[in-house]
Amino acid sequence: MTVSREVELEGHIIDSGMMQSCFGIIMDLGGSFSVQEFDIGRHKDEESYARMLVEADDEDQLQSIVHELHQHGVNPSDPKDATLVPAPDDQVVPHGFYSTTNHPTYIRHDGEWVEVEDMEMDCAVVVEDGDSTRAYTKVLNAIEEGDLVVTDETGIKVQPPERPRDAGGAFGFMQGGVSSERPSESTIRKIANAIRETKKEGGKVLAVCGPALIHSGAREDLARLVREGYVDMLSAGNGFAVHDIERDIYGTSLGMDTESLDHPRHGHKHHIYTISEVIREGGIEAAVESGTIESGVMYECVDNDRPFVLAGSIRDDGPLPDTITDAVEAQNAIREQAHEADMVLMLSTLLHSVAVGNCLPSTTRVVCVDINPATVTQLLDRGSAQAVGMVTDIGTFVPILAEQLLDEE
Amino acid sequence: MTVSREVELEGHIIDSGMMQSCFGIIMDLGGSFSVQEFDIGRHKDEESYARMLVEADDEDQLQSIVHELHQHGVNPSDPKDATLVPAPDDQVVPHGFYSTTNHPTYIRHDGEWVEVEDMEMDCAVVVEDGDSTRAYTKVLNAIEEGDLVVTDETGIKVQPPERPRDAGGAFGFMQGGVSSERPSESTIRKIANAIRETKKEGGKVLAVCGPALIHSGAREDLARLVREGYVDMLSAGNGFAVHDIERDIYGTSLGMDTESLDHPRHGHKHHIYTISEVIREGGIEAAVESGTIESGVMYECVDNDRPFVLAGSIRDDGPLPDTITDAVEAQNAIREQAHEADMVLMLSTLLHSVAVGNCLPSTTRVVCVDINPATVTQLLDRGSAQAVGMVTDIGTFVPILAEQLLDEE
Amino acid sequence: MTVSREVELEGHIIDSGMMQSCFGIIMDLGGSFSVQEFDIGRHKDEESYARMLVEADDEDQLQSIVHELHQHGVNPSDPKDATLVPAPDDQVVPHGFYSTTNHPTYIRHDGEWVEVEDMEMDCAVVVEDGDSTRAYTKVLNAIEEGDLVVTDETGIKVQPPERPRDAGGAFGFMQGGVSSERPSESTIRKIANAIRETKKEGGKVLAVCGPALIHSGAREDLARLVREGYVDMLSAGNGFAVHDIERDIYGTSLGMDTESLDHPRHGHKHHIYTISEVIREGGIEAAVESGTIESGVMYECVDNDRPFVLAGSIRDDGPLPDTITDAVEAQNAIREQAHEADMVLMLSTLLHSVAVGNCLPSTTRVVCVDINPATVTQLLDRGSAQAVGMVTDIGTFVPILAEQLLDEE
Amino acid sequence: MTVSREVELEGHIIDSGMMQSCFGIIMDLGGSFSVQEFDIGRHKDEESYARMLVEADDEDQLQSIVHELHQHGVNPSDPKDATLVPAPDDQVVPHGFYSTTNHPTYIRHDGEWVEVEDMEMDCAVVVEDGDSTRAYTKVLNAIEEGDLVVTDETGIKVQPPERPRDAGGAFGFMQGGVSSERPSESTIRKIANAIRETKKEGGKVLAVCGPALIHSGAREDLARLVREGYVDMLSAGNGFAVHDIERDIYGTSLGMDTESLDHPRHGHKHHIYTISEVIREGGIEAAVESGTIESGVMYECVDNDRPFVLAGSIRDDGPLPDTITDAVEAQNAIREQAHEADMVLMLSTLLHSVAVGNCLPSTTRVVCVDINPATVTQLLDRGSAQAVGMVTDIGTFVPILAEQLLDEE
Repeated sequence: MTVSREVELEGHIIDSGMMQSCFGIIMDLGGSFSVQEFDIGRHKDEESYARMLVEADDEDQLQSIVHELHQHGVNPSDPKDATLVPAPDDQVVPHGFYSTTNHPTYIRHDGEWVEVEDMEMDCAVVVEDGDSTRAYTKVLNAIEEGDLVVTDETGIKVQPPERPRDAGGAFGFMQGGVSSERPSESTIRKIANAIRETKKEGGKVLAVCGPALIHSGAREDLARLVREGYVDMLSAGNGFAVHDIERDIYGTSLGMDTESLDHPRHGHKHHIYTISEVIREGGIEAAVESGTIESGVMYECVDNDRPFVLAGSIRDDGPLPDTITDAVEAQNAIREQAHEADMVLMLSTLLHSVAVGNCLPSTTRVVCVDINPATVTQLLDRGSAQAVGMVTDIGTFVPILAEQLLDEE
Repeated sequence: MTVSREVELEGHIIDSGMMQSCFGIIMDLGGSFSVQEFDIGRHKDEESYARMLVEADDEDQLQSIVHELHQHGVNPSDPKDATLVPAPDDQVVPHGFYSTTNHPTYIRHDGEWVEVEDMEMDCAVVVEDGDSTRAYTKVLNAIEEGDLVVTDETGIKVQPPERPRDAGGAFGFMQGGVSSERPSESTIRKIANAIRETKKEGGKVLAVCGPALIHSGAREDLARLVREGYVDMLSAGNGFAVHDIERDIYGTSLGMDTESLDHPRHGHKHHIYTISEVIREGGIEAAVESGTIESGVMYECVDNDRPFVLAGSIRDDGPLPDTITDAVEAQNAIREQAHEADMVLMLSTLLHSVAVGNCLPSTTRVVCVDINPATVTQLLDRGSAQAVGMVTDIGTFVPILAEQLLDEE
Repeated sequence: MTVSREVELEGHIIDSGMMQSCFGIIMDLGGSFSVQEFDIGRHKDEESYARMLVEADDEDQLQSIVHELHQHGVNPSDPKDATLVPAPDDQVVPHGFYSTTNHPTYIRHDGEWVEVEDMEMDCAVVVEDGDSTRAYTKVLNAIEEGDLVVTDETGIKVQPPERPRDAGGAFGFMQGGVSSERPSESTIRKIANAIRETKKEGGKVLAVCGPALIHSGAREDLARLVREGYVDMLSAGNGFAVHDIERDIYGTSLGMDTESLDHPRHGHKHHIYTISEVIREGGIEAAVESGTIESGVMYECVDNDRPFVLAGSIRDDGPLPDTITDAVEAQNAIREQAHEADMVLMLSTLLHSVAVGNCLPSTTRVVCVDINPATVTQLLDRGSAQAVGMVTDIGTFVPILAEQLLDEE
Repeated sequence: MTVSREVELEGHIIDSGMMQSCFGIIMDLGGSFSVQEFDIGRHKDEESYARMLVEADDEDQLQSIVHELHQHGVNPSDPKDATLVPAPDDQVVPHGFYSTTNHPTYIRHDGEWVEVEDMEMDCAVVVEDGDSTRAYTKVLNAIEEGDLVVTDETGIKVQPPERPRDAGGAFGFMQGGVSSERPSESTIRKIANAIRETKKEGGKVLAVCGPALIHSGAREDLARLVREGYVDMLSAGNGFAVHDIERDIYGTSLGMDTESLDHPRHGHKHHIYTISEVIREGGIEAAVESGTIESGVMYECVDNDRPFVLAGSIRDDGPLPDTITDAVEAQNAIREQAHEADMVLMLSTLLHSVAVGNCLPSTTRVVCVDINPATVTQLLDRGSAQAVGMVTDIGTFVPILAEQLLDEE
C-alpha cells in the first residue's frame, strides 16, 4: 500500500532549479511521482506551473519527502492549517517541531497565510493568536512553556529567493565560488557600488570586524567609513575594541607600531593598560567623553551614534566593561543588529561572522572578506543566496574600499 | 530582425539539471526561447523530451548560445554535418575551431555520427576521412598543417554523464563539496570499495603521487598496493622517485629517517648520492636488476611490470635517467597513461594531478587526496563528474587504505 | 650622561641561547654593554657565569632593557625587593605593573625569593604578606582594590626552561617547525609514548576538543581513551558535546550518519532535539543516569568521573544546561583545569586551545593537532617551550593514537 | 679512545648565534668540547674569538661534527688544503663530495684561500687548476668525468652572513616569521624602499611571476614597473605569458574579462587562439614587432629589452615558441638570471620561486608574496637570510607597490 500527497510548484520553476531539486528529493528519499499537470512558461518571462502526485511506501517516508520539498518552496496543493503544539517546558520544543530555513516563510492559520516575522534559520515558529494572528521565530533558549509551536509540515509555505533573471544586478558576480584568482580591484569596486546602492535605498550597513583588521593597518580607513556613514553598525569582540583603542592611546596594536612596524617594549602591557584605563573611566563612551580616546573605530562609533555590540569570548583579556560576557545575552544583541541590517560586511572574523550569519534572513546582502579561503567558504556555505565572498588581504581591502567610496565620488 | 535555431533535449533533462542549465544559458547570453514541444517523463524512470526555438539578436549571439548549449548536451534538432577546415600551419588551429569538453562527443560526417576517440578537454577534433571515418582529439602542439579540424558548432553532439538515478553507487558520496569535517575512516572505506570494484571490472588504477607521500611515511603501504596489484600504473615526478629510492638505499627521505624522525647528518647528500648511484647504474630498472634498489614503490613497479612515468620539472635535482625532461614529451607519456586508466588516485601533488586531469575523459573515476583543501578544490573544479575529494593526511590515508584493501579481505 | 646597571647570567647560558638573546636585546633597544666577568663552562656539562654592565642613555631606556632581559632570565646582580603598589581600584592595575611570562618566576620580598604560584602569562603578580609571604598571578578582572601588585623590574627572577641537553626525550622532536610533510604514524607513536610517560609519572592529561573530532568519526576512539584513563579531563564547547550526544541518540552528527555518510532528513532537527532532550533531563549527568545517553565521550566522562568544562560561545545553539555561558566564569573554570594538567592535547579547535593555552605554564607538555597549518602555527607561537605541533587529519589521528595506546600494549 | 680536532670561531660569534649553534651541534651529534681560549668582545662593536677542542668517539663521528660546524662558519684552526677527487663519470660525484650551502665559501688550494664562484646550495665544488686557481659550483647534471671535485670537510671555509647589528636596515623587518596579521600598506612601503635602494646601488631586480598575477588584475601595474625599470628581468611559465598576451589580444584572462568580471563565451578558446597566433608569428618578439601584441608585461619586456625566461611545465597548453620545454635547459636559463639578480620578487608562484630560489646565494635580497601562507613559509624555509615574506593578495599588492614606486616619487 502506498500513500500519496498532491503538491504544487509555481514560478520560474525550471530556471530556478526548483523542479530539478524537487525530482531529486523525491528520488533520493525513495519516493516516486507522477506529473499531473505541467504548464511550461513558453518564453523567458512567463511563469510555469506544475501539479504532481508524490507517492511513498508509508506515511513516515511521505512526510520526510514533503518536509524536504517544503524547504525548497514546493507546497501542498490543498493547504491546511499549521499544527500548533504547546511547548512542554521552558527551552524544550514539542516533538516534530518545524525547524526554519532562512527564506521568507508563511504559516496558515484559520485559513489565512501569515508571514513569519524575524526570519532566521534553525529556529522554531511560535504563533500568537490574539486579535490579529502573529507568527515569529524563536531560538531554543527563548521558548517558554505553553508557547504554541508549529509542528509537522502542514500549513507552511516557503519562498526561496528566485535566481535573478537579469544577471547584471549589484551582486550578479562571483556567486557560487570562492577564489583568490580574481581581479581584486574590480571586485572591490563592485562591492563599493553595492554599499552605495544600499545607502541610496535607505538601508543599513553592518560591519562585523575581527582584530586582524587593526593589526593589518586598516583601522584608520574603517574609522573613516564609520564617520562618513558607510558603516551604520558594528559587531565585534573585546579584542577588536581593545586593539583599536590601544592604537589611539599608545600608538600600537598588540604591541606593534602599525606604521613603523617596530615593537616598542612593554607591548603586551599596552593591551592590559588599555583595558585598565577604560575600566577606570567606566566604559568606552565615558572614555571618549573624557578625552581619553580621541580617534579610531570605536571613537567614531560613539561620536557618530553608530551602535556597536562587543561580544565576549573565552580568550579575552579583561574584558572591557562594554563587552557582553554572557553568550546568550550577546547572541540576543547580535540578533537585534542582524535583523536591522540590509547589508553585512564580514571582515576577517569567523566566530563573529558565523554568529551574525546565523541570524540573517536569506534576503540580506552579505560580503565576506578573509585571507583564508576556508573561512570564506564556510561562511558562504551557511546559506545566504545573496552572499559574495572575496579571498584577499583585509589590510589592502579596506583602504581600497575607502578610497573608492570616499575619494572617488 | 532576430535569428533563431531549433534545438532538442532528450533524457532525464529535468533531474539532471540540463533543462535548467539550458534556460540559464539562453538568458545569460541575452537570448530568448519558446518551448515548442515538451513531453515530461511522468514517472521517475521515464525520459523527457523538449524541442525549443532559441532566438537571438544576431548570428554571432546565436552561435554563442548554441555553442554553450552544446557543451551541456543540447543539440540542434536538424543536424548537419560538422564543418571541417584544414589547419593553416603546424601547431596553428583554424579560426572558430571547436574546443572539446571532457564528455563523450560525436561528430556528424557524411550524415553519420562518429564518436570522437581519446576524449580530453581543451583539444581540437581532427577528422580522418579514409575507408572508415575516424575522429579524435589533438592538442595544439600535435596539430599538423592540413589536418581537417572541426570548426563552429554544427554537427557536434555532446553527452554529459547524467546524475546517477540511484545515489547508492560507489561514488555516490561527497560529490559537490570538499571538507575536512567528514568521517575519515568511513570515507576511505568507500574509496577502497571503488578500487575493488574497478579491479573486479577488469579496470586499471593509476596512482599520481607527490613526494609528500614518501616524507609522510606512506611509502611501504603504497609499495604493497603496487605489489598486490591495486595500483597498475604510476605517474610522478623526479623527486618522488629519488625520495623513494633514497629511503631504500640510505633509510632516509630528504635526509630524515622516517621512522625515528632523526636527521642523520649528510641528509641532503643522500639525495644527490641516490641520483648519482642510479645514473651510474644507467637507470631505475638497471639499479633494481643489479640489486642496488631492493624495496619501495619504484622497486615494486619494476618487479611487477607496472609502467611508470616520471615527468621532469624545473625544481628537480639531477634528474634521474628515467625522468622525461621535455615537458611536451612528458605530457604525451602522461596522456597515454591517462587514457588507459579507469580510476585515478591523485595523492598529494597538484602539478602532476593537473597534468593527468587535463587528459581524462569525464567518465573516469577520480579520487583526489590532499591535506590542503585548496588543492582538492582546484582539482575537482577541473571537471570530472566522477571526482571525489578528500582533505586528509596522506601519511595516515595510505596506511588505512592499504589495511582495508589488504588486511581486511 | 649614561645610566647603568649590573646584571648576571647563570647556567647553560650559551647553548640555551640566553647569552645571544641578551646581547641582541641590549643592542635592539639602543643600549650597550661591557662584559665584566665571563666564566665559560669548559665542558658540555659545566654551567657558565657572566656578569655584565648594561648602559643606556637614560633611566627610561635602561628600564626597558632590564625589563626585557628579565623576560629572558637575566637578573640584576644586586637584587632588591620587588616594588609593591596597591591596585587603585577593582580591575585596574597600578602603572608600571609587572606583566608575567609563562616561565617559573620568583619575587624578592623581605630579602627572600618567593616562587610565584599559578604561573600564567600576561597576568599581574599579587603579593600576600601574612604569616608567610605568598605571591600568585591574577588576571585583570580578578584584581581587587588594594591588592599589592608587583611593579617595575626590581626583585623579580625569571627562569626560562633550558633547552634539554639530551635531544632524545619524549618531546625532542618536531620542535621549531610545523609541517604536514612528516611521517605521520611515527610522529603519533612519539605522542603516544609521551602520554604513557605522563601517566606513569602520575600526571594528568587534558584533552581540548573541537566539533570536527566528532564529524570526522573519531568519537568512539576518543571515548575509549577517556574510559581507559588516557584522558583525565575534557575542555570543549557546547557544540562538541551536542554533536557527541546527537551521535548517541540519533546516530548522526549535525545530521550526517558518520558511518554510512548518509544524510537522513531532519538532520538539523536532531541537533536541536538533542539539546532539548538534555534540557528536559536537567543536564548531561542526569541524562546519563536516566539512560537517555548511553555512549560516547560525554558519557564516558560522566561514567568515569572525568571532569569536563563546556564553555559557551556566541555561535552556540541552545545551549546545554552544562555550558557555562559567561565568558569570565568559563575562563575561570578553564584556568583551574589548565593548572592541574601535566599534558594537554589540543585537538582541532583554535578558540578553546587558545583559551587553555593562555593559562598554561611553560613547563606543561602540549600537543596541537589540526589539519590547518595556520592553527597549529598560531598555537605554537603562543609560547610553550614544550609544544609539539602536527598537521594531520583528526579523523585518522585519534584512531591511530587509540590503536597505539590501547591495542598495542 | 677519542679523537679530536681544534676549531676556531671569529666575529660576532655570540650575538650571531654562532657560538650557540656550535655548542648545540656538538652535543646533538654526541661529541663533547673544551674551550681553550675565549676572548669576548667587551663592547657591542668588538669581535670575539674562541678556540676549542672538539672530541668524538671515532673519526666518523668527528667528521660528522666538523662537517656540520663548517656549515655554520666554524673552521679548523689549522687549515689544510681541500681534498680533490676526480669525478668517476659524467653526472656522477665522488663519494664524500662536499655539498654546498648558499653562503659565501672559500676553498684552500696550495695554501691559498680561493673564493667559490656562483655560490648556490646543494651543488658540488669543482676546482680548476690552471694559471690561476678557480673554484666554482656545479650541479649534478653538469659534472663531467675527471672534474676535480672537493670532498670531505678539510680546507673549506664558510661565512654565513652575520645578523645585522643595526636592525634599522631596509630588510630589518618581518624576519623569522610569516603572518597575514601585519600592517599591509606599511610593509609594502618597506619593500618599495628596498627596491629603490637596490636600483640606486646599480642592482638588478628579477620578478618571478605566476599566472594569478594576471587573473587578479595586477597586469597593468606590473607592466608599468617593467617599463619604468623597477623590474629588470622576468622569470615565469608558459601560462603567465599566454594569459598576459590573451589580455592584450582578447581583453580576457583565461576567458574572464578582468575589468567587468564577465565571462564572454569562447573563453578557453582565447587561450588556445593566443598561443596559435604567437606560433603563427614565430614567437613573442616577432608578435610585438608585427603589432599583434601591443601592451602588457611581455610587450614591455620586449620593448624595453628586459630579458625573460619562460620555463615549460607538464600542465602547459601549447606551448609558446619562447617556452623552454626541457627542464634541464630551463634550469640553466633560470640559474643565469638568478646569479645576475640583486633582488628577487617572488610573486604568487611556488614552482618557479623554488626553481629560482635553489640557485640564489644567501646574500641576495628576496621578497615572497603569496596569499597562501604555506607557500610563503616553504619559500622562506629554503634559506636566504635576506628573505622577507608577505601573505597578501597579489591583486592589491602590485597596484599599491606600483603606486608607491611610481606615483609617490
